[in-house]
Amino acid sequence: MFRPEIKVLDCTVRDGGLMNKWQFEDDFVRAVYNANSKAGVDYMEIGYLSSEKAFPREKFGPWRLCADKDIRRVIGEGERKIKLSAMADIGRIDYDDIPIKSESMLDMVRVACYVHQIDAAIELAHHCMEKGYEVTINLMAVSTVGMRDLNEALDDLSKSRVPIIYLVDSFGAFYSEDIDLLSAKYMERLPGKTIGIHTHNNQQLAFANTISSIINGINYLDGSFYGIGRGAGNCPLELLISFLKNPKFNVRPIIEVIESHIFPWREKIDWGYFVPYMVTGVLNQHPRSAMAHMESDHKDQILDFYDQMTNLVESL
Amino acid sequence: MFRPEIKVLDCTVRDGGLMNKWQFEDDFVRAVYNANSKAGVDYMEIGYLSSEKAFPREKFGPWRLCADKDIRRVIGEGERKIKLSAMADIGRIDYDDIPIKSESMLDMVRVACYVHQIDAAIELAHHCMEKGYEVTINLMAVSTVGMRDLNEALDDLSKSRVPIIYLVDSFGAFYSEDIDLLSAKYMERLPGKTIGIHTHNNQQLAFANTISSIINGINYLDGSFYGIGRGAGNCPLELLISFLKNPKFNVRPIIEVIESHIFPWREKIDWGYFVPYMVTGVLNQHPRSAMAHMESDHKDQILDFYDQMTNLVESL
Repeated sequence: MFRPEIKVLDCTVRDGGLMNKWQFEDDFVRAVYNANSKAGVDYMEIGYLSSEKAFPREKFGPWRLCADKDIRRVIGEGERKIKLSAMADIGRIDYDDIPIKSESMLDMVRVACYVHQIDAAIELAHHCMEKGYEVTINLMAVSTVGMRDLNEALDDLSKSRVPIIYLVDSFGAFYSEDIDLLSAKYMERLPGKTIGIHTHNNQQLAFANTISSIINGINYLDGSFYGIGRGAGNCPLELLISFLKNPKFNVRPIIEVIESHIFPWREKIDWGYFVPYMVTGVLNQHPRSAMAHMESDHKDQILDFYDQMTNLVESL
Repeated sequence: MFRPEIKVLDCTVRDGGLMNKWQFEDDFVRAVYNANSKAGVDYMEIGYLSSEKAFPREKFGPWRLCADKDIRRVIGEGERKIKLSAMADIGRIDYDDIPIKSESMLDMVRVACYVHQIDAAIELAHHCMEKGYEVTINLMAVSTVGMRDLNEALDDLSKSRVPIIYLVDSFGAFYSEDIDLLSAKYMERLPGKTIGIHTHNNQQLAFANTISSIINGINYLDGSFYGIGRGAGNCPLELLISFLKNPKFNVRPIIEVIESHIFPWREKIDWGYFVPYMVTGVLNQHPRSAMAHMESDHKDQILDFYDQMTNLVESL
């Protein structure tokens, strides 16, 4: 039996864009959108909502900005079966640059923040709610947050009007036991709120930790086509859709677009399970050093990378 | 705190050899052996114990046979820090071709069988015990075995003298909830015996299911370097060793040999997470059709493969 509260969000373009500065062609974004619609996915996160002065169009693709004209050009004005989401980072979007919901193609804004930004995140989230959007707060890098800071942040979120709070494993550092512990904590400290999960695959646990989250009562689930996303990438959507029991889900359109539109990107960017990403995951470090290593001309020299990272962590 | 009963077995050469007919150079096997010794791994499974008439040397590499002369040439006669294992398939080894322990480099024989072969497996296992070996029985493809047959097989194993019984997810079909259920069943029906786990990575759950097994009290854990093994491969040993808390384990020698000896094989054989293997895992089918697809000249045509397999399964 399936749980009707479960919602699936595809973050292929948003998180995958972290690997190519959102340089996806319109045809790519449209293919992902159409596949999500046919697959029964609930939300598609189409990019980041940012101010153009922070991310000039000559350097970044349109999905770093999510301007309404770009969304309309790709998605069209017809009836939509799925909702569209964009992520907003604290400090990278001016309030005035966020249109009101009735003038926007977006249904949801997900506010991403680190623990020290929680007050600013709640303020931005409330602002977006007042403009008419569905809103979540995604508290990132929880694996690096001390227990007292986390409790305080969750209590602040509990007092807010934001209805959906995401548990985010930014560094791919969590094991299922961490998910069990943190799910219980989020549930306990955030009564009445819906909890979501966003995982990274550094230790090949993105899908497994998403399953653990489901078992623990988490209802908003992120995934991406073939796991495309920053570093080791995210929970592969094809695995998640195959696992979920709601008969509305259908994996075939996702497999079709993996073949036609995702495979060509494998030649250009290295997301997925690679030892440098595993090393930063195990060491609970930001993946940026592993990404730099993977972009270098010596990406297969994994022992050097392991030695550098373990020396670095031991010297901290 | 670590659990001292936990033993790690590396099956790189044995399961990886299913992808290349055991055509590993001596230098490869020696490098894996030395890395296992330094990494604190307990057992290395060096291949299959088979009769030469069934697997002629002109077609198969030496590790399909595990002749003592080959093991001695590669491992040498010096003191060993780790134990050596070989797998024996029912019907592929004559009893007379198994040397007695005192004349062999092997410490352990693992008898692999399907559920209908359980009586033959117990007989072979007892024979190997009488020749002086540590012995396990690895009951394969449990995801396809009905509950009544499984109960009967476990009761037969319970009455045997074989001390270690493996739960084997041959098709990579299990989720953590299956591992929870089956671990409990194996523990209950096999009192006093040690339970092991051997997983496949079709759904990126090999490592996660191994963690679930540990939580459930399973103590013998299989892994392989960079997950090399049949189809989607096995639990990546570098992840397992990084996870386990016993300070005797050290992942560095494994990373070193992944770089020097495993990476060159990536150019020649496709193990790991690929959509065709995912499809057979989700459908609880033998990976042979996915392996054939991956060896064809149209391996990226994954939608065709998905359609063929779902049509096949629906027509069963």
